[in-house]
Amino acid sequence: MGKSNVWLRGLSLMILSASLNVPSRAQEAQSSNLQTVMPGLNLMPIPASVQMGSGSFKIDASFNVTRTGHSDARLEGALQRFLDRLGKQTGLLLPPWNSPTVAKLRMVVHVDHDSKPVQELGEDESYVLEVAPSGANISAPTDLGALHGLQTFLQLVTVSPDGFVAPAVIIKDTPRFPWRGLMIDTARHFIPLEILRRNIDGMETVKMNVFHWHLSENQGFRVESRKFPKLHQMGSDGLYYTQDEIRGLIAYARERGIRVVPEFDLPGHSTAWFVGHPEFASGPGPFTIERRWGVFDPAFDPTNEKVYKFLDEFIGEMAKLFPDHFFHVGGDEVNGKAWDANPKIQEFIRAHDLKGNAGLQLYFNKKLQSIVSKHGKSMVGWDEVLDPTLPKDIVIQSWRGQAALAEAAKQGYRGILSNGYYLDLGWSAARHYAVDPMGDAASSLSAEEKQRILGGESCMWSEYVNAENIDSRIWPRNAAIAERLWSPQEVRDPAWMYARMHVLSVQLEWLGLTHQHNYLRSLRRIAGAASTEEFNALRTLADVVEPVKDYMREQTATEPATSEMPLNRVVDAIPLESRAAREFSEMVDKYVGSSCRDAATGAQIRAQLILWRDNDAKLQPLAQRSFLVKEVASTSQDLAAVASVGLAALDALEHGGNPDEAWKTQQSSLVQQAQKPKGQLLLMPTPAIQKLIDSASVGGSCAAPRQ
Amino acid sequence: MGKSNVWLRGLSLMILSASLNVPSRAQEAQSSNLQTVMPGLNLMPIPASVQMGSGSFKIDASFNVTRTGHSDARLEGALQRFLDRLGKQTGLLLPPWNSPTVAKLRMVVHVDHDSKPVQELGEDESYVLEVAPSGANISAPTDLGALHGLQTFLQLVTVSPDGFVAPAVIIKDTPRFPWRGLMIDTARHFIPLEILRRNIDGMETVKMNVFHWHLSENQGFRVESRKFPKLHQMGSDGLYYTQDEIRGLIAYARERGIRVVPEFDLPGHSTAWFVGHPEFASGPGPFTIERRWGVFDPAFDPTNEKVYKFLDEFIGEMAKLFPDHFFHVGGDEVNGKAWDANPKIQEFIRAHDLKGNAGLQLYFNKKLQSIVSKHGKSMVGWDEVLDPTLPKDIVIQSWRGQAALAEAAKQGYRGILSNGYYLDLGWSAARHYAVDPMGDAASSLSAEEKQRILGGESCMWSEYVNAENIDSRIWPRNAAIAERLWSPQEVRDPAWMYARMHVLSVQLEWLGLTHQHNYLRSLRRIAGAASTEEFNALRTLADVVEPVKDYMREQTATEPATSEMPLNRVVDAIPLESRAAREFSEMVDKYVGSSCRDAATGAQIRAQLILWRDNDAKLQPLAQRSFLVKEVASTSQDLAAVASVGLAALDALEHGGNPDEAWKTQQSSLVQQAQKPKGQLLLMPTPAIQKLIDSASVGGSCAAPRQ
Repeated sequence: MGKSNVWLRGLSLMILSASLNVPSRAQEAQSSNLQTVMPGLNLMPIPASVQMGSGSFKIDASFNVTRTGHSDARLEGALQRFLDRLGKQTGLLLPPWNSPTVAKLRMVVHVDHDSKPVQELGEDESYVLEVAPSGANISAPTDLGALHGLQTFLQLVTVSPDGFVAPAVIIKDTPRFPWRGLMIDTARHFIPLEILRRNIDGMETVKMNVFHWHLSENQGFRVESRKFPKLHQMGSDGLYYTQDEIRGLIAYARERGIRVVPEFDLPGHSTAWFVGHPEFASGPGPFTIERRWGVFDPAFDPTNEKVYKFLDEFIGEMAKLFPDHFFHVGGDEVNGKAWDANPKIQEFIRAHDLKGNAGLQLYFNKKLQSIVSKHGKSMVGWDEVLDPTLPKDIVIQSWRGQAALAEAAKQGYRGILSNGYYLDLGWSAARHYAVDPMGDAASSLSAEEKQRILGGESCMWSEYVNAENIDSRIWPRNAAIAERLWSPQEVRDPAWMYARMHVLSVQLEWLGLTHQHNYLRSLRRIAGAASTEEFNALRTLADVVEPVKDYMREQTATEPATSEMPLNRVVDAIPLESRAAREFSEMVDKYVGSSCRDAATGAQIRAQLILWRDNDAKLQPLAQRSFLVKEVASTSQDLAAVASVGLAALDALEHGGNPDEAWKTQQSSLVQQAQKPKGQLLLMPTPAIQKLIDSASVGGSCAAPRQ
Repeated sequence: MGKSNVWLRGLSLMILSASLNVPSRAQEAQSSNLQTVMPGLNLMPIPASVQMGSGSFKIDASFNVTRTGHSDARLEGALQRFLDRLGKQTGLLLPPWNSPTVAKLRMVVHVDHDSKPVQELGEDESYVLEVAPSGANISAPTDLGALHGLQTFLQLVTVSPDGFVAPAVIIKDTPRFPWRGLMIDTARHFIPLEILRRNIDGMETVKMNVFHWHLSENQGFRVESRKFPKLHQMGSDGLYYTQDEIRGLIAYARERGIRVVPEFDLPGHSTAWFVGHPEFASGPGPFTIERRWGVFDPAFDPTNEKVYKFLDEFIGEMAKLFPDHFFHVGGDEVNGKAWDANPKIQEFIRAHDLKGNAGLQLYFNKKLQSIVSKHGKSMVGWDEVLDPTLPKDIVIQSWRGQAALAEAAKQGYRGILSNGYYLDLGWSAARHYAVDPMGDAASSLSAEEKQRILGGESCMWSEYVNAENIDSRIWPRNAAIAERLWSPQEVRDPAWMYARMHVLSVQLEWLGLTHQHNYLRSLRRIAGAASTEEFNALRTLADVVEPVKDYMREQTATEPATSEMPLNRVVDAIPLESRAAREFSEMVDKYVGSSCRDAATGAQIRAQLILWRDNDAKLQPLAQRSFLVKEVASTSQDLAAVASVGLAALDALEHGGNPDEAWKTQQSSLVQQAQKPKGQLLLMPTPAIQKLIDSASVGGSCAAPRQ
């Protein structure tokens, strides 16, 4: 770190005693206290250090901002965006940042010196934000920190009894990891630029700093190549980004302090390349764009010298287009079948004494790495590229897990973690949140080895994701991963995280993200012409189901999914995590967890269960009219059934009875039936209802009688 | 009409016996039957003629469309937009319209001949749409009709037990009026182009064909003038449309069959012009952009010959920029004070023997008209410009009412109705819907005079409307006005209209309109960090309040509103018409209206009243934390109070008692208290609750006892 001089300028601050990247005992104490010193601050990610002041800074139409110190066009743009955003968040009409009519300055942003023209890994992103009743100051070594400080300030602003305010506070902040990324797979489903832009806005809000752009796949080649136009012309169905568009997006990301790392997946995952260039494949053509999902056989032919000549030219072109120092070559999931099937390739393996197909891929990787390096870049690859004979400047992105990441670090390679951060698997935010790049195997690394773990990336693979629902697959859960990568390791209470994530989620919609409102819009399409009561019934059901997890969607499909299948079902519309089910579960935990049942909580649980029990009758008429509702009709019946079970259990609990084992077994079996996925949906309240059964059979132990 | 030959091509159709513009007895019978022959067709506006077939046309990924007949770039663009829209509406992935991969044609659009390069008033907009299980055909004299047919088809598509379908049907359609407009005031609040574009998309959906662009006001001059750049540079706060942007919007509208009529309001409503050009004003400068609302004194000086030289040059510039044949010069609300205060002007009036200020404005109008005419345009003005000495090619836009419109028609002038169509006044859709351009005074006009009534325009004045909430002020109510202007006069059942409008409203959000989701987003801002229960309580209240109507917002304001005041209050977030209150009112009508009370309806009313009664307790904690919620706290208490009154009345009703007059008086007085606006909000369920009281005191007359 060591750039803390900026923290002292004109501000009365406490001095941090330890670096934030290497947790110390003092810092742990501080971090575990963050939750208690931040009443009502809905910051996400949580800053490294927060000191509450007294009073608050009122935000009204006289609010304005200027900058001092080093002059920077990026910062000036950021100040205007900050005001636009603050205006949306409050509804206030704020004058432009450099408005000559402004009399009294209220916020000053100071930057020490220039940042790099092409953003680099590890640049100083720290800042200090001081808010007092009279105004606010942000101070940072470079504009990168200032950008983060502005986002923190936006999150501080809340509605209060006296208007919009930011509480008095001193925040000293710096990220835990220098590489905090979001990967979006724009190849399996094409994602229009406008949607990438608003997701980059979302990344800025949660202080992520790497957009990893997955650009080629079996299902599509998404970049205009002027040297090899058949790549995009024949490999994309016309859905690709022009070079101008790409330059525009890189500039857009840079404005927000975000690097753009392109990925061209080689030598597998490459069918779409071969539609225009079958001559580089290991097997005979012709090839067509793949429409199915999965791991496929086509792969580049590592024994063909023309492949390297092509890659040299192609990567040369792309290395100019993408200015970032890192260049991702994929390298994952080569099944080797195309190599097995080609006698010439097998002969080559023998002739060069390579260790089978793995040895062949290593041979390919080495040549690829030297090409990438020749064009001035460091190569990034998925786990599979790891081999001790490769130069140490490559970066390993681990989809396999922390053990693989730790192993890379031990061998001297830098790495980033993505295992545990796959947004498409439908995990809860809490489950992602619990995954730490320094956890498990990494925790026993030496300090030097730990330095090689640069951070992590959430990954949005797009088999079941398209322009319509992608926002809801990324947000708000991605904020939990962003916090894991930015905030002190000790910040890890999931309940606190959820409370803040829900507030953030609302703010993200002001960026144009659609994760909240597209849910309702899509449900309305599913419902068709419906009465208010019918629509509410559909929503009540949809609110408590989640898509099946991990790779169960493939495994529960009645027919293999393809890129041409519509994503218009309930499973595609719902959020990947049910807030209503989680809140119900918390209520049940609270109720059954205390020795003396809380009557008000019991009443709330009862009201909820009655609503669910009676919901099915309201939904069924709609299921008769819409095939998309019909698909969830049996889940609706399940919800009614388990709600009835829950009510019976609640009766037993409230009356202090001790139902017999046969009853318990019977009810549990009903719940287990309902727990099986139907229509690729999971009914999320079932575990909490099982808890009610289990508690009912334990019997009440309340001292005071039920009111 | 008379272009019906197209209706015969290859289609088996019934022949309409009469022109649709002049209702005949036969046609009235047909129109009043429309509602019964269209089960489940949620079309809006209702077509002139509908004949249901049997079966339906299944819409799946094999759907495709092509065109025959006259080739037209506008139609080809429309076909692609149609497919994009159909894709969004169904979630299906549809290939591009001219996709070479498509094997079997499913929809054919045939156009006879070219439309005008610059769209003209009265061009043939008719079409025939035939849907059969095997496919669909649209046939139209020009692409204008084809565009309408495509929109009708989109509205036919519904979700069914077997997927998305369009029912078999033959629709023969043509508009009742040739001028069906929406005016947006972009001057009082600047409305960004992107928002105008999506509202033009909405207009296309409901078959409106004139976008009336209100471009200048006391509060802003919104057009780039290259001849007089001080107009926009000094009169707009930098918020204006460049000429390139305007050309782009005109092209965008034309693509959708929509004319663009610009309005420059003269000689009043003109303060913003004088900021840069005080020399044209009647009084001394300097002038500043007006920030308040109302009618203001500044006006052009009609006695200054330089004014006409300026207008000649300015209108010459604008006449080139806006290709439409009509040019709106405003002409409304000149209060004459600036003329009274200028002795030279008064001397001019005397010297020229003009009839006071009105005579002076007529003098101005005549010179203005000749300038407009010189530049090849027909002048449009508000009521005030009407004078029998003006040429007959001018068009009167009536904000004063149908009598004024009829008077103009009698004098030989064409006119359009806007009185009754002011969207900013907060009327219900049903109230707008009941207003007919041929109603009242117009109904007694001769056939020839009636031909002069061209149609109407809804008007979105923007005192309390900005980029954030404008969509919700226009939609969905504007669809009711659009139907009034397109559909046969006999189509006028409000319940049917509402049922269709709610379906349409959902579809409009797929255009990017935000009228539904911005409501929730804005409420969340008002709530700040809130629990699910607290937020739902706010929403429950917000769902049943409406802003005060007509011009009561000014009259109930605690301080004068200005263009700088934020529009972030509950009154700004809520829809202008409460669906929940209307549905409650219908339920109460159903319950008290039948001699034998329906127990299920009674139970629904009771559940709703209990929810409202108990809502306040959930809301109050939030009111303690947010000033924007606090403002509605007393309305929340009122809702609880009237809900309790309603419950008492319901008890009396259900038990068949006959409460005494004192009780009735006391309860009614509580309801009347709650009926008074607070925080500029009206509590909409109060009339229905009053009905419960009134019915309770009447006593039950049910033959069968309550279940």
